[in-house]
Amino acid sequence: MQRDLVIYSGGLDSTVLLAKVKAANPEVKAMHFSYGQKHSTSECQAALKVCTQLNVFMQIIELPFAQWGFKSALLEHGEAIPTGDYDEESLKKTVVPFRNGIMISIAAGIVASQGGGTVHIGAHAGDHAIYPDCRGAFLHSMQQAVGEGTAEKVALVRPFVAASKSAIVKLGVELGAPMKLSYSCYKGGEIHCGECATCRERKQAFKDADVTDNTEYEK
Amino acid sequence: MQRDLVIYSGGLDSTVLLAKVKAANPEVKAMHFSYGQKHSTSECQAALKVCTQLNVFMQIIELPFAQWGFKSALLEHGEAIPTGDYDEESLKKTVVPFRNGIMISIAAGIVASQGGGTVHIGAHAGDHAIYPDCRGAFLHSMQQAVGEGTAEKVALVRPFVAASKSAIVKLGVELGAPMKLSYSCYKGGEIHCGECATCRERKQAFKDADVTDNTEYEK
Repeated sequence: MQRDLVIYSGGLDSTVLLAKVKAANPEVKAMHFSYGQKHSTSECQAALKVCTQLNVFMQIIELPFAQWGFKSALLEHGEAIPTGDYDEESLKKTVVPFRNGIMISIAAGIVASQGGGTVHIGAHAGDHAIYPDCRGAFLHSMQQAVGEGTAEKVALVRPFVAASKSAIVKLGVELGAPMKLSYSCYKGGEIHCGECATCRERKQAFKDADVTDNTEYEK
Repeated sequence: MQRDLVIYSGGLDSTVLLAKVKAANPEVKAMHFSYGQKHSTSECQAALKVCTQLNVFMQIIELPFAQWGFKSALLEHGEAIPTGDYDEESLKKTVVPFRNGIMISIAAGIVASQGGGTVHIGAHAGDHAIYPDCRGAFLHSMQQAVGEGTAEKVALVRPFVAASKSAIVKLGVELGAPMKLSYSCYKGGEIHCGECATCRERKQAFKDADVTDNTEYEK
């Protein structure tokens, strides 16, 4: 049996990725990481709603990053989320160092334990400016490491690494992905704030894709 | 300030590595992972003894691998530790999938959070037969991934990757590393069993190095 696991935040990009992999393999599983991000509750709830709608099992892995000594404005008790555009220098405060390396490694270990398969991650071109662990070079090296370190039992794929967020929105429409249920806001309120960097990036992606944005924003 | 972190199990190889890095940087820190290994208590206790002797701060990171779905004879509630030599096929049951990838990734994230530095790992040539995540190719790819994924804030070094365990014992003697306090036994008893694969490997390394083995073995 083909075994596919999607690293699934509940955000827009990984929601489209999950719908894409689900279309190819109905048995796909999702893995959500709860690492003390400020928007954890809303993000996790969105992830569960999407998984319920798509009929996908979701495993939740808890990692106490702040307790371990991680520093990031994205974490509880970290400094305030900076304002600005998603690709602005100030947004670097929201980097959670090597987060994708950690999530990929844990997912690879679990999939290898189950007999092997494929780990999917939804990092995309818009992430590259600020987040080094979303870039093609990093993901290529991790791909090598995952293959070699599991004796080729596990493969890593990152289909959106060269895609823009608006291209992902377009694909989401084609696939009928429940994008409306996904959650992007760094602020972590019950509904999207509409003003933070990720909300602005989300709005822009729908606009650029010429797709109606059904997200409920505060502003 | 130079920042060095050693991934530190409390075993023989990483004890020599810790002494080596300590000689170059008195401020070195150790990071021990408790992931439900059968020999966790004895290993952790040995690690703390060595760190006390070397005056090194040791951080302990707990990872509930079995709860997450990892399968390995090395884990609590896993099947029995197989007997045989350290490089025998049957020992593959003791592989904890992608363990080094996970430990390196978490260490890299924490060091990056502190401003950057170097992560050291003690994987050596004798590990290569059974453990894919100890091999040079894997560690080379992880090196690339750690650099790229932290915007070159963190470097990974693995000085023993081509060394035999007996060469590590010889270096330990030169450095005055407290090898006697280190712990290798997979069985996890209060003293080394003397019969399991890692005990046999440990005995052989001292013999090959022509160094008196002060380890207390049951047999």
